[in-house]
Amino acid sequence: MDPPMAGLGRKRFKELSETLRVKPGSRVRLPEDYDPGRTDSLGKETGKRATQALREGVELLSEYQDRLQAEEARALLIILQGMDASGKDSTIKHVMSGINPQGVQVSSFRAPSSEELSHDYLWRSVRRLPPRGKIGIFNRSHYEEVLVVRVHPEMLKAEHLNASPGRDFWKRRLREINDWERYLVDNGTHIVKLFLNVSWKEQRERFLARIDQPEKNWKFQAADVRERAHWDQYQQAYSEMLSATSTEWAPWYIIPGDHKWFERIAAAAVIVNTLIELDPRYPTVAPPVRKELEAARRELLAEPKKKR
Amino acid sequence: MDPPMAGLGRKRFKELSETLRVKPGSRVRLPEDYDPGRTDSLGKETGKRATQALREGVELLSEYQDRLQAEEARALLIILQGMDASGKDSTIKHVMSGINPQGVQVSSFRAPSSEELSHDYLWRSVRRLPPRGKIGIFNRSHYEEVLVVRVHPEMLKAEHLNASPGRDFWKRRLREINDWERYLVDNGTHIVKLFLNVSWKEQRERFLARIDQPEKNWKFQAADVRERAHWDQYQQAYSEMLSATSTEWAPWYIIPGDHKWFERIAAAAVIVNTLIELDPRYPTVAPPVRKELEAARRELLAEPKKKR
Repeated sequence: MDPPMAGLGRKRFKELSETLRVKPGSRVRLPEDYDPGRTDSLGKETGKRATQALREGVELLSEYQDRLQAEEARALLIILQGMDASGKDSTIKHVMSGINPQGVQVSSFRAPSSEELSHDYLWRSVRRLPPRGKIGIFNRSHYEEVLVVRVHPEMLKAEHLNASPGRDFWKRRLREINDWERYLVDNGTHIVKLFLNVSWKEQRERFLARIDQPEKNWKFQAADVRERAHWDQYQQAYSEMLSATSTEWAPWYIIPGDHKWFERIAAAAVIVNTLIELDPRYPTVAPPVRKELEAARRELLAEPKKKR
Repeated sequence: MDPPMAGLGRKRFKELSETLRVKPGSRVRLPEDYDPGRTDSLGKETGKRATQALREGVELLSEYQDRLQAEEARALLIILQGMDASGKDSTIKHVMSGINPQGVQVSSFRAPSSEELSHDYLWRSVRRLPPRGKIGIFNRSHYEEVLVVRVHPEMLKAEHLNASPGRDFWKRRLREINDWERYLVDNGTHIVKLFLNVSWKEQRERFLARIDQPEKNWKFQAADVRERAHWDQYQQAYSEMLSATSTEWAPWYIIPGDHKWFERIAAAAVIVNTLIELDPRYPTVAPPVRKELEAARRELLAEPKKKR
């Protein structure tokens, strides 16, 4: 049953995944505690070997996605968060291409619409949850509500809320998110959360590339640079968010983001390992259904070979 | 700008695509006029060469999908229709895997829900239309309303309609679909329609495989075999539908379905060629935006190299 690379790939993906996991209850301090430039456990695997490692990951992903879809009992929600240019789009492209698009739905959360703002802040995420059997990817998510909104609390006005809330307000939001996610997991939607951790220095390089390469211009807005003025506040908001919401039921993984090749392998490792632990199975057929199948076979075999 | 296989792949995909197109206004008679076993124009390309041809198709698809997304001006809707086991799921899997899932959304239309039935018959399709910049795939579609519903008109009762309508009723539906599709195309949602044409004999073989291979059991229901009793009526309904709704703005392509390797290459050829004709472009930056980008670059270059 196991594909040829099993034993090699699976074990290493599991080990790598575990080193990236934020232990529930631990206190995260960015940027000190987590090096965006880390490539250690696969340090030598640049070039060809990196491509091979990523391909192994994508093949395993593809296999497990097929099982998840056949089982049709549980869903997997993958949440991607990270600063601008941290690699969210390219991780989706490189890790999730090669997977049957019929089994995956990607939702990108931009600034909320006025309809969305007239509901509670989780409403728009609820609407995009993957159904059983599917993998859902949130490119940004409800976590923006404790990140960009925390850095710019004036945004709360648009949510019809007090725009200068106290610390308790943010603690409550973090608790509400934990409660909601626990409800989802208990009801069959499993959750894995990836924070793509890019450095201040590397974001600058990527912005410059987006300015200099005409084909990348459309991905860039001058306002993105101005947001760098709030870098420390974002690191603080991310630190608190990661500390408060990496739970047993929906853990965060911090993906080193400065080297794209390692970022992709690390993201693939976490997702593959999550699916291996979910262990979806092709459904087995109950005896009465087996009987129906046998009857259908007899019917088919009794048919005339040719039509007309 | 062109990838290395250009000139070879593009031209052949275009030629193949044109031979599969149902000329608007022509009269389709199934099964006589279209051979599901056809593999002619790529007849020798089995095995390795078929894999290579499909890969070329997927690479072109991936390139054009990226441009479509960057352009964000138009959407592409791909409609797949065909009998059970005609290869709809596997075409999506093999042709569309390898494409950024962020740019693709697949909608499978099964039996309508009671909410859907309490609306007009196009309503549920409207809700799943792809937004600008995306490729939407309909796995079955509103065409079921002139296929399965035509073969089983008693289904109209659930739609709150007269269950024994005359010929005019179906003519009206076909016209309404044309009108709606023209509206969509005129407003930026381009449409390409693929009929996966499998033979009576090959469907039987595939059903037997689904019964015999435990991992395929979940894709099969005994009722699927009973539906074969209506095969001729379906061929008739498909013939009328293809004749009436292959339009200049939203043509049908008849994809020979008995050889999966050729089915996939043919489907890829049609989709690739449609995208090439749409010719989406990376947006160019207007002079005032270019100025902003230059200002952003200066800002970035003036920053301290290190944070703190």
